[in-house]
Amino acid sequence: MKITGTFLDEISHDIPHQNWGRAEWDRDFGYMKAVGIDTVILIRSGYRRFITYPSPLLIDRMGCYEPPVDLVEMFLQLADKHGMKFFFGLYDSGKYWDTGDMQHEIDANRFVIDEVWAKYGTYKSFGGWYLSMEISRQTKGAASAFRILGEQCKAVSGGLPTFISPWIDGKKAVMAATSSLTKSDVVSLQEHEREWNEIFDEIHTSVDAVAFQDGHIDYHELEDFFSVNKKLADKYNMECWTNAESFDRDMPIKFLPIKFEKLRLKLEAAKKAGYDKAITFEFSHFMSPQSAYLQAGHLYNRYKEYIEALSK
Amino acid sequence: MKITGTFLDEISHDIPHQNWGRAEWDRDFGYMKAVGIDTVILIRSGYRRFITYPSPLLIDRMGCYEPPVDLVEMFLQLADKHGMKFFFGLYDSGKYWDTGDMQHEIDANRFVIDEVWAKYGTYKSFGGWYLSMEISRQTKGAASAFRILGEQCKAVSGGLPTFISPWIDGKKAVMAATSSLTKSDVVSLQEHEREWNEIFDEIHTSVDAVAFQDGHIDYHELEDFFSVNKKLADKYNMECWTNAESFDRDMPIKFLPIKFEKLRLKLEAAKKAGYDKAITFEFSHFMSPQSAYLQAGHLYNRYKEYIEALSK
Amino acid sequence: MKITGTFLDEISHDIPHQNWGRAEWDRDFGYMKAVGIDTVILIRSGYRRFITYPSPLLIDRMGCYEPPVDLVEMFLQLADKHGMKFFFGLYDSGKYWDTGDMQHEIDANRFVIDEVWAKYGTYKSFGGWYLSMEISRQTKGAASAFRILGEQCKAVSGGLPTFISPWIDGKKAVMAATSSLTKSDVVSLQEHEREWNEIFDEIHTSVDAVAFQDGHIDYHELEDFFSVNKKLADKYNMECWTNAESFDRDMPIKFLPIKFEKLRLKLEAAKKAGYDKAITFEFSHFMSPQSAYLQAGHLYNRYKEYIEALSK
Repeated sequence: MKITGTFLDEISHDIPHQNWGRAEWDRDFGYMKAVGIDTVILIRSGYRRFITYPSPLLIDRMGCYEPPVDLVEMFLQLADKHGMKFFFGLYDSGKYWDTGDMQHEIDANRFVIDEVWAKYGTYKSFGGWYLSMEISRQTKGAASAFRILGEQCKAVSGGLPTFISPWIDGKKAVMAATSSLTKSDVVSLQEHEREWNEIFDEIHTSVDAVAFQDGHIDYHELEDFFSVNKKLADKYNMECWTNAESFDRDMPIKFLPIKFEKLRLKLEAAKKAGYDKAITFEFSHFMSPQSAYLQAGHLYNRYKEYIEALSK
Repeated sequence: MKITGTFLDEISHDIPHQNWGRAEWDRDFGYMKAVGIDTVILIRSGYRRFITYPSPLLIDRMGCYEPPVDLVEMFLQLADKHGMKFFFGLYDSGKYWDTGDMQHEIDANRFVIDEVWAKYGTYKSFGGWYLSMEISRQTKGAASAFRILGEQCKAVSGGLPTFISPWIDGKKAVMAATSSLTKSDVVSLQEHEREWNEIFDEIHTSVDAVAFQDGHIDYHELEDFFSVNKKLADKYNMECWTNAESFDRDMPIKFLPIKFEKLRLKLEAAKKAGYDKAITFEFSHFMSPQSAYLQAGHLYNRYKEYIEALSK
Repeated sequence: MKITGTFLDEISHDIPHQNWGRAEWDRDFGYMKAVGIDTVILIRSGYRRFITYPSPLLIDRMGCYEPPVDLVEMFLQLADKHGMKFFFGLYDSGKYWDTGDMQHEIDANRFVIDEVWAKYGTYKSFGGWYLSMEISRQTKGAASAFRILGEQCKAVSGGLPTFISPWIDGKKAVMAATSSLTKSDVVSLQEHEREWNEIFDEIHTSVDAVAFQDGHIDYHELEDFFSVNKKLADKYNMECWTNAESFDRDMPIKFLPIKFEKLRLKLEAAKKAGYDKAITFEFSHFMSPQSAYLQAGHLYNRYKEYIEALSK
């Protein structure tokens, strides 16, 4: 199963920035393209006060900082140049994390969606929307927030596709800013199926694909969870993608590139489950030949050998 | 606001060593010079048993290890060569951290200051003293320790300048060796002003400049704290510098280079407050083109573009 | 004291993988050889479900994953090529860590030893066995497990040498996946001597060498612990090696390459105690010129200068 999409992790929650300029990003899109990536997804257009494009609205209403460069424009131009699709990730005010109330995200993004489409909607590569709120369980208000925002994204953009990328509440679902690697109170397969059945039931008319993060469960649990995910997606006529994490959750340094063998296990589990597409979080730190983490360049080489062998 | 000084973080508390030899340091001073750095500051001349120069005194009295190389001599020679000023950071016995009693630092440094001036005082680049004890609040005995040691430094060296670099007890003032990124019991602006007014009142005759670390408060708090700092410094006729941290306190890996946008926000806040000088902690790990952290080289490029744009 | 051996840390507990292929490993064996390393030791042949060679036995009985490459074969071929000795590290089921019962490791390895010797015993470089279970105290069942497995290794291989690499239960003996750097309940020198006397008494007929890890105690404690270790090894006619850790246990990032000065202190303490051999954990991440951690390449250069100066 080939990875054909990657997140662009600017603005980051927990991965240190590489401080790349346009030249580095241009080169990176080339490296992506060379291994078959045709889709780039802005992980979020802003997080709390840091934003990726000069939004008068977010600067005025949310006290955001004027960004030094318009990343949205740059990514769209580079996606145009390299013939890739760009998905725009919604703004994350941070208030859902602080208060548990999704209404803040609906309110902020109601205007962001209009502003962004007016400003950037004419780029050829503008290919869809990523509803960036991350959940793992049937959180109060989350499903309806996805539905409302998905509907709005589609309405302004003539029905461009939307997707979400939740995590599975497994043993490795611990905060990055803790030292522990695992926890013991985890979701069961049955709870996972029941809760996501309810969520899909509400969102399937305005969310086209679901890309579960694949890194929070153990490798031998992949098969069971992946087949439940696929069954549910099929039932609601949604696409089932995998978000193949290319960083390693099993190590004390949070986070460095994953061991290739682990990435391969996860991709093969997705293939076995009949998934529609694989994207990764994310190429530029964890798989790129020019990453500051040199392990990433070796992962790129191992992955390249792997997909070349597959295609023979 | 241009950065014109940097700490040299040998001996380190919490930043892994790069194991550079003289060739790498020589090259690094060149990289510094190329972006306008004219001042290097040895962060401390020793920490517990590890020391930067072969001090018979510290080896005998404190059980310190004989160092493999005389870093003080090397740094002074390189500062001479590159036309920079060198500030000598005092010895940190570690006992203040363990016991809260600053008397240990006074006792140890009483002799270090004499020894160092006798040994290295003739270097042209020997330009001042850094009183390396770090505090954030009106800690018992700290102000008088600064005063006593500052007086001694000035007395032996014909009045060379001295400075301190405290931190602000804000939300990010957590120990490096914890996994958390923030805390909730923080100093208020009023407490900060009151306590530092008392400290400055005692130390201003023997401490010429104060360079508050800029990384422990949130970005939107910079303006308020910076204007209080400047007001106090003006009142006591001290220079007000900023210690612009070039590493990122918001990430689980403690610590990698900062996102350029954040550094820019902090430098512009210092400029707005009318600060006299900006130094950084520190160039060689976090901003150098030859840093083991490749993000640092990109930060160097982004910073270089920024100061070139400023000067147009 | 020169380092003449290194672990190969594939499969890793806590050090992120570099994703090297055969070309990188071949080059690394060359870098090792150039500084006098003549022995490579596979740290473990498997850990829980991840294994280094395609073992039908471990895949069937332990549910292990089919590995993408046969690392044991590759390492033996490279050791042959570079004229080095290869020590095979036993399988670690993880069950001893979970349950405290060493019987699981005896049961699993009973078959692994036979399988591996049948499969790889003819390689010229196959030079010995590493009993990979790590202990620090007189743990229930550990000494007899070492004896039983050591006897079996020797029996199948015509008496090839065996060794263990325990840690000392000192102040830095904390789990990698915690944020703390030290603990307060540590073993005393007397307890250490008493417990290891008992262990050596049981194992010395089937274990040829002991290589205590040198990183869990403070630098000024090295001399005392090293002389006890040497005295005990002499008493039981075992070889006394040091496992010189080339990563830094004193820093919040767990783990990056060690400061050269610290490695030197530890090697000189081993020399002073009359140790027989120094190995390191480990070369490829922490001392190699091609390590993803660029500090490692500088450590290589500093170490090279050091051993060249020694040999003059």
